Amino acid sequence: MAVQQLMVQKGLRYKLYQELVPEARLRSISVTNLFIVALVLLSFVFLALETEPALNSQAEWRAVFRVFNIFVVFAFAVEYVLRVFVAGLDPEYRGIGGRLKYMTRFYSIADLLAFLPELIVMLAGFGIPLIALRVLRLFRLIKIARFVPAFDIFGAAVKRAGTQLLTALAMALVLVYVSAVALYFIEGVGGEQQESFASIPRAIWWAIATLTTVGYGDVYPVTPLGRMFASVIAIAGIGVVALPAGVFASAFSDELRERQEAKEKAATHAYSSQAERTPDGKVPLPGTDGGLGD
Amino acid sequence: MAVQQLMVQKGLRYKLYQELVPEARLRSISVTNLFIVALVLLSFVFLALETEPALNSQAEWRAVFRVFNIFVVFAFAVEYVLRVFVAGLDPEYRGIGGRLKYMTRFYSIADLLAFLPELIVMLAGFGIPLIALRVLRLFRLIKIARFVPAFDIFGAAVKRAGTQLLTALAMALVLVYVSAVALYFIEGVGGEQQESFASIPRAIWWAIATLTTVGYGDVYPVTPLGRMFASVIAIAGIGVVALPAGVFASAFSDELRERQEAKEKAATHAYSSQAERTPDGKVPLPGTDGGLGD
Amino acid sequence: MAVQQLMVQKGLRYKLYQELVPEARLRSISVTNLFIVALVLLSFVFLALETEPALNSQAEWRAVFRVFNIFVVFAFAVEYVLRVFVAGLDPEYRGIGGRLKYMTRFYSIADLLAFLPELIVMLAGFGIPLIALRVLRLFRLIKIARFVPAFDIFGAAVKRAGTQLLTALAMALVLVYVSAVALYFIEGVGGEQQESFASIPRAIWWAIATLTTVGYGDVYPVTPLGRMFASVIAIAGIGVVALPAGVFASAFSDELRERQEAKEKAATHAYSSQAERTPDGKVPLPGTDGGLGD
Amino acid sequence: MAVQQLMVQKGLRYKLYQELVPEARLRSISVTNLFIVALVLLSFVFLALETEPALNSQAEWRAVFRVFNIFVVFAFAVEYVLRVFVAGLDPEYRGIGGRLKYMTRFYSIADLLAFLPELIVMLAGFGIPLIALRVLRLFRLIKIARFVPAFDIFGAAVKRAGTQLLTALAMALVLVYVSAVALYFIEGVGGEQQESFASIPRAIWWAIATLTTVGYGDVYPVTPLGRMFASVIAIAGIGVVALPAGVFASAFSDELRERQEAKEKAATHAYSSQAERTPDGKVPLPGTDGGLGD
Repeated sequence: MAVQQLMVQKGLRYKLYQELVPEARLRSISVTNLFIVALVLLSFVFLALETEPALNSQAEWRAVFRVFNIFVVFAFAVEYVLRVFVAGLDPEYRGIGGRLKYMTRFYSIADLLAFLPELIVMLAGFGIPLIALRVLRLFRLIKIARFVPAFDIFGAAVKRAGTQLLTALAMALVLVYVSAVALYFIEGVGGEQQESFASIPRAIWWAIATLTTVGYGDVYPVTPLGRMFASVIAIAGIGVVALPAGVFASAFSDELRERQEAKEKAATHAYSSQAERTPDGKVPLPGTDGGLGD
Repeated sequence: MAVQQLMVQKGLRYKLYQELVPEARLRSISVTNLFIVALVLLSFVFLALETEPALNSQAEWRAVFRVFNIFVVFAFAVEYVLRVFVAGLDPEYRGIGGRLKYMTRFYSIADLLAFLPELIVMLAGFGIPLIALRVLRLFRLIKIARFVPAFDIFGAAVKRAGTQLLTALAMALVLVYVSAVALYFIEGVGGEQQESFASIPRAIWWAIATLTTVGYGDVYPVTPLGRMFASVIAIAGIGVVALPAGVFASAFSDELRERQEAKEKAATHAYSSQAERTPDGKVPLPGTDGGLGD
Repeated sequence: MAVQQLMVQKGLRYKLYQELVPEARLRSISVTNLFIVALVLLSFVFLALETEPALNSQAEWRAVFRVFNIFVVFAFAVEYVLRVFVAGLDPEYRGIGGRLKYMTRFYSIADLLAFLPELIVMLAGFGIPLIALRVLRLFRLIKIARFVPAFDIFGAAVKRAGTQLLTALAMALVLVYVSAVALYFIEGVGGEQQESFASIPRAIWWAIATLTTVGYGDVYPVTPLGRMFASVIAIAGIGVVALPAGVFASAFSDELRERQEAKEKAATHAYSSQAERTPDGKVPLPGTDGGLGD
Repeated sequence: MAVQQLMVQKGLRYKLYQELVPEARLRSISVTNLFIVALVLLSFVFLALETEPALNSQAEWRAVFRVFNIFVVFAFAVEYVLRVFVAGLDPEYRGIGGRLKYMTRFYSIADLLAFLPELIVMLAGFGIPLIALRVLRLFRLIKIARFVPAFDIFGAAVKRAGTQLLTALAMALVLVYVSAVALYFIEGVGGEQQESFASIPRAIWWAIATLTTVGYGDVYPVTPLGRMFASVIAIAGIGVVALPAGVFASAFSDELRERQEAKEKAATHAYSSQAERTPDGKVPLPGTDGGLGD
C-alpha cells in the first residue's frame, strides 16, 4: 500500500514537474505556466490601475484590488511551495541541501520576493504604506523572464555592442555637455537671464530634450543667438546622439535573430534525436527517483 | 429579334464586366473604376470637411455636403447593383445561388455597408444622428483596396516580421512600463506630488510620449532626480522603443519590393502568353455565356 | 584697326564666356560665378533679415537693406546682359534668333525673374508693396542650381523611389486618416468635446504632429481612452509614417553616390582626353567665330 | 654618490615617464592617468553644479566648490610640471629647446590653459568674474582626448562623409529656408499675422524645430492653410533633414569600426613582437639617457 501511495505521489509530482519546470518541455509552454504568465501580466495592469486616484477613490475598485492582490499573493505562494516540492525530482536539488541550493537560486529568490513581503504585511495586518512594497512586484518580471529567454537579450546586446556602444555614448554625452555649456552662456548668463538656462544642469536638461528630439517645450532658447546655436546643434547633433540608440538597437536585433536561428536549429535537432535524448536528459524517469526528496 | 436583343444585352454586360471587374484587365485600371476610386477619395475629404464646425455652420456648405452625400450614396448603390448584375458573367457566380455567393463575399459586404445604412436613413428621413453612420464610410477604404492590392501589405508585413516584431514589442513595452514606474515613484509619490505623474497609467502616458520622442510637453519631470532618470531613459531607451517600428518598417519595405518584383514578373509572363491565356482564363467569351444569369 | 578692335572685343568676350558659362570649365568654378553664388546666398540672408521687424524698424538697417537690394538687382541685371552678350559665342545661340532661343531657356527666364520685377518697381518708384515681389527672389535659387547640379537630385530621387515611395506614402496617409478619425470620435465627439479634436481636419493635424514625432503639444488627447489609442497608434504607426521619408532619403543618398561616382569617372576621362576634346567640344575657338553675333 | 643619486632620480623619472606618457603603455592606462581622467570628469560635474543657483547659494556648497577647484588647479599644475620634467626622457624633447618644442605642442598648450588662468586669478586674488574663466575648463576635454584617441573621430567622420555630407546639408538647408519662406507668407504676412512667424528668421526657427522633429511647441501654424503646408513639409521633409545626420552617423560608425579593427590588429602584432620592439621603440632605456635633460 505504501508503495502504491508512493507511486501515486510520484506520478502526481512528476506531472507537476512537467507542468511547472519550463525545461521539461520543448518549445511549448504548459497550461499552468501560461496561467502564471497571464497572472503576472494582469498583476502589472492592476499595479498600474491601483495607483490611479480616480479608481482608488471608489470603494468597489478598492475591493477589486484587494481581492485580486490576495488572490495573486496566495497563488504565487502556492506556486512557490510547489516549485520547491517538485524540485526534488531533479537530481541536482534532491534532499534538504538540494532544496536550499534551489531556494538560493536567482530565480527562486525573485519568486519569493514576488509575494512574501506582501504576504507578511497581509497576515500581520500592519498599517505599513503599501506603496514601497509595490515596487517589489517588479520582481514578477523575472518570473516571466524564465519562460521568455529573450528577456536577457538586453544584457547580451549591451555586451555585443561593446566598445562601439561606449564610444558612441561618450561622444553623445560630450555633445550634450558642450551644447549645454554653450546655451548656458548664451541664454542663461547673457542679458536674457532665462530661468530655464540659469545653470548648466538645467541646460543639460534642454540639450537632452533637444538632441533626442523629444522636445517637450518646457525649455527652449529665446534669443536670436541662442536659437542660431540651437539650430546648428540640432541639425549636426541629432545624428550623434541617435548613434548609441542605433548601435544598441542594431546589436539587439542581431542578437535576436541569432538566437531565433539557434533555437530553431536546436529544436530541429532535438526533434530528430527525441528517442535517444531522454536517458541522458535532465528529466529523470519516475522509477529512477529515490522518492525521498522531501 | 430576341436573339438580337440578347446579343446587345450580352455585349453591354460584357463591356460593363470589363469596366467594373478589376481582374478583367492587366496592369491598367478602367475609367469607371478610376472614377469610383476618385469618388471614394473625395468622399473622405468631404467626410473630414463635414465634421468641421467652421464649415458645417454655414448653410451653403451644408447644402454642398448634402448634395455630395446623396450623389455618392446613389452612385455607390448603382455601382453595387451593376456589380451584382455583371457578376453572372463569371461562371462562379452564375444564377441566383452564385449571386448570393457573390453578395456574401467580404468585398461585396463592404460595398453594401459603404452606402446602404446612409441610403436607408436618407429614404426614411429619420432624424438619427448621422455621426455614428459616418464611421461606416471607412468601409469605402475597402472599395479602394480592391484596386490597390498593396493595401493588405500591412497584415503581410506583420506576419513576415513575426517573432522578431513580437519580442521587440515586448521589450519596448517592458521599458515603457519600468520607466513609468520609476518616474511615478520619483515624481508622483515623492515630495513634489505632481498631478501628471500621480498614477502609473499617467506615467505610462509620459513614458510613451518620451520614448517615441513625440514629446507633447503636457507631462515632463520637474525634479532634478526625475530629470536625471528621464535623461538616462531617453538616451538608452529610444533605440529600444524605435525597434518594433523599425522591424515593421523593414518588413513592410521588403514585402513591398518583393510584390513589385513578382508583379513585374507576372506582367511580363502574362504579356508573352496573352494569346493562349483567354480560353482557360476567368473571363468567359460572350458566346459561351448561357445568358440566364439574372 | 577695325580688325585689331574686333580681336580685342573677341578676346574680351571669350574671356567673359569662360568666366560666365559653367560648362566652359571642368570641375572648378570661375571667380565671377563664385561671386554670383555668394551674392545669391547673401541675398537670401538679407531677404530673411529684411522681414525681421526688430531690424526693419531701424532706419540704419533699412538703409543697408535698400543699398544692398539696389546693388544686387543691378549686379544681376549686368550679369544677365553679359550672359546674353557672350551666349553668341556658342553656335547654338548665335544671331538674333539664337539669342531669343537663349533668352527663353528655363535658366534664362529664372535669371530674368530674379531681378527684373524689382528693377521695374525701383525705376518706376511705384508704391507697390514689395512683399509679394520678394517671393520672386526664390528664383535666385535656380541661379545657384546651374553651378550645383546636385540641386535637381530631388526630382531624380523621387523618380528613382517610384512606386515604393508612392505606396509608402499612401499607407502613411491612410494611417494618418484612420488615426485622426479614431481620435475625432474618441476625443472630439465623445463626452469631453475637446476643441482641438472637434473635427477630422483638426484631428489630422494632431495625427501628423504625432506620427512624425514632431509633437508640438498644441493638441493631445486627454481622456484615458484617447491616450490609450494614441499610445498604440504612436508605437505602431511611427514606423509606417517614417517609411516614405526613409524610402526617399535612401533614394536620395543612392542618387547622390551614383552621381558622385559618375562625375569622378567623367572627370578622369575628360582629363585624359583633354587634348583632343576642344575641337569637337562646345567651346568654339575665337578665330572660328564670325564675330557678328550681336 | 652623485651617480647613485642620478640613478635614483633617473629611476624615478623613468617610472614617472611610464606613469604619465600614454604612449609608454599598450592598451592599458596607468593609475596616474586614470586619476587625471577621473579628475577631469569630476571637474565637469562640478563645473555644472557650481552654476546651479540652488547649490551656489548655500555656503557649504560654495566651500566645497572652492576647495575642489583649488585642488584641481594645483593637481593639474603639478601634473603639467611633471609632464614637462619627464618629457626630457624622450630624445625628441631633450634639453631646453626640446622642452620649448614640447610646451608648444597642441596638447601641452591645452594642458596649460586648463589650469593657468584660474591659478593666476586665485594667486592674484583678483575680483574678476570667474564665469568667463570657466569656459576655459572645456580645454580639459583635450586632456582626456589624449587617452581616448576616439575623440578625434568627429573630424575624421566629417572628412570621410565628405561631399555627400555637404550636399545633404545643402539640401536640408534649402528645404528649411523654402519651408520657412512659405510659412512666413502664409502665417506671418497673411491675415492672421502671427507673432511667431512675423519674419523669415523666426519662421526658420519653426522650420528647424519641425523638420528635426524636435517640435518644442513654442511656434506652430494655426491657420488651416499653414497647417496643410506644414503637414506636407513634415511628411516630405523629415527624410531630407535627417539625411545629413544619418550620413554623419554612418560615417562615424564606419570610422569607429575601422579604428577598432586596426587597433586590435596593431595590439596583436605588438604582442607578438614585444621582445624585439623595445630597442627601436620610443621608450629609451634608462641607461641610454644622458640624464642632462632638465
